Amino acid sequence: MGAVPASFDRARSITESTMRASVQRLAPELIVPIQYHLGWADRDGKLRPGGGGKGVRPALAVLSAEAVGAPAATGVPGGVAIELIHNFSLLHDDVIDGDEERRHRRTVWAEFGVGAAVIAGDALVMLALQVVLDGTVAGARAATVLVDATDAMIAGQAADMANESRADVTLEECLAMADGKTGALLGAAASIGAVLADADASAIEALAAFGHHLGLAFQAVDDLLGIWGRPEVTGKAAWSDLYQQKKSIPIVFALTRGNGTSEELQALFAAGAREEQDLVRAAELVERCGGRELTESIAREQFELAVAALDQVTLESTARAELVEVAEFVTTRDF
Amino acid sequence: MGAVPASFDRARSITESTMRASVQRLAPELIVPIQYHLGWADRDGKLRPGGGGKGVRPALAVLSAEAVGAPAATGVPGGVAIELIHNFSLLHDDVIDGDEERRHRRTVWAEFGVGAAVIAGDALVMLALQVVLDGTVAGARAATVLVDATDAMIAGQAADMANESRADVTLEECLAMADGKTGALLGAAASIGAVLADADASAIEALAAFGHHLGLAFQAVDDLLGIWGRPEVTGKAAWSDLYQQKKSIPIVFALTRGNGTSEELQALFAAGAREEQDLVRAAELVERCGGRELTESIAREQFELAVAALDQVTLESTARAELVEVAEFVTTRDF
Repeated sequence: MGAVPASFDRARSITESTMRASVQRLAPELIVPIQYHLGWADRDGKLRPGGGGKGVRPALAVLSAEAVGAPAATGVPGGVAIELIHNFSLLHDDVIDGDEERRHRRTVWAEFGVGAAVIAGDALVMLALQVVLDGTVAGARAATVLVDATDAMIAGQAADMANESRADVTLEECLAMADGKTGALLGAAASIGAVLADADASAIEALAAFGHHLGLAFQAVDDLLGIWGRPEVTGKAAWSDLYQQKKSIPIVFALTRGNGTSEELQALFAAGAREEQDLVRAAELVERCGGRELTESIAREQFELAVAALDQVTLESTARAELVEVAEFVTTRDF
Repeated sequence: MGAVPASFDRARSITESTMRASVQRLAPELIVPIQYHLGWADRDGKLRPGGGGKGVRPALAVLSAEAVGAPAATGVPGGVAIELIHNFSLLHDDVIDGDEERRHRRTVWAEFGVGAAVIAGDALVMLALQVVLDGTVAGARAATVLVDATDAMIAGQAADMANESRADVTLEECLAMADGKTGALLGAAASIGAVLADADASAIEALAAFGHHLGLAFQAVDDLLGIWGRPEVTGKAAWSDLYQQKKSIPIVFALTRGNGTSEELQALFAAGAREEQDLVRAAELVERCGGRELTESIAREQFELAVAALDQVTLESTARAELVEVAEFVTTRDF
């Protein structure tokens, strides 16, 4: 696995104060659950060090400003807004999926109630838009980018919910969902800094395409980690995607092979088999069907498409190299 | 009660096609629950005639464009966006409050599940913003108006949730909540058409103030109907606010009088008394404490402040008269 790119720390150091100041603007009743969710505070609101996610999204936003020759600061509102939207989606997705744990901690709905998680998520959406809508034309364009990406993300989540109960989801549908759920917001993250910098449409488009492909690579890696990841590193239970019978890329591919191995997997799922030995067997079957290999090849291919998208335009060379570094990290991470 | 203003029907007839076309842009999985919520379809997605709310908000948006000399059409995206945001808040509030019925029908979460209601609400927010963010400066300003109002509405709802379990909510807190929950969005409705028409700041401000006061009047009337309204007309259960021990204006006023009547009401609430005769008694106590009279006077006063706000600027006279008519209707309605 590659090291965590230096751009993550740098982006975090310049976005974090804006992020924290934004959250302070919320209604007092919402600050505690949100600080808890972000890992900034414990359940009683007592501040604690650390928190926040990996930092992929703020890094992309800041780099996308630098890539078109603007200062890093230009991308900051975009990075903060994307991170707020990302956290809105986590809060609501945990309610929708009924997930009680995230990053080794209880989720907001599990700890504060469904109502608190719903309204906290709603508040983050408004905050995100307020951060970018600064009265400038570029700010309005950034808001449009944010809204369209969030809309696509919601559509992806809605499709995911509808597909959960279907046994006949195709790989194509599965990839479309991934593009909505992950690709859209990463596409926005990787271009919003350039939008705020008033860059040429061609540069914005290339950066957005980079982010979209990166999002698919990200999702493919996530799906691999959801079966073969090490629980102590990923923070997810062992074989969690198999336990939940998630419609992930490797699982959907394996279920739709139409051979004997595929049928055995279908039977295992239909029987609701959730013992350790069943999950180990299911993982073997997915692998034997070629689900692991295919997903790895999608991750690689999307990584290459992401980098190729950057070659469509001339970008500032240091930022470009750092974007590639982010893509490498995303594709090779083990958490 | 005054007749339903003609502007309601007119505004509905020019906003409805945009509203319906917008909803069609949603992910297919979301269209049925949203059409059901809007009363456009039954539970299985079969279309049915009618539906929609009273039409106060679209009327205000359209009239606010006309009030500054713009054509009604200028206000349409604003009216649609406000109506979408209003429906987002209904969907999520029903989840938060656990309400199983609205307008004589089961709520979306009760019928389709919490997840469906949460994501349908989220989708409506994005749709509302897409409707106004049309690439123009005025559209961006309208988006800001919408976001700030929604933010205030969410803060009001969060305060409401926090106050629900408190016995010592003051009338001042109660009015601040009402301003957030109802005043903010009506303030936006009554000015967004003028914003889209690129009107002077003074006209926008006057119209926003009109809407804010109207919102408080609206809430005061709602609180009166929540106790003394006729269930067959309001669509709420008899004495519903007393049954739910809501922190409404008349109830909070009565609870905080500090006299014997007030104490009897507190004791009734503390005992969780919910029998018909208890609720009848509670209504008497609220009235004897002056809660009904005070709330009626707030409705009248806010109506007058609303009309006075319009006098701060010169507005197109027909539209101005129709705005006053809307205010009269809102203050005298019985549903």
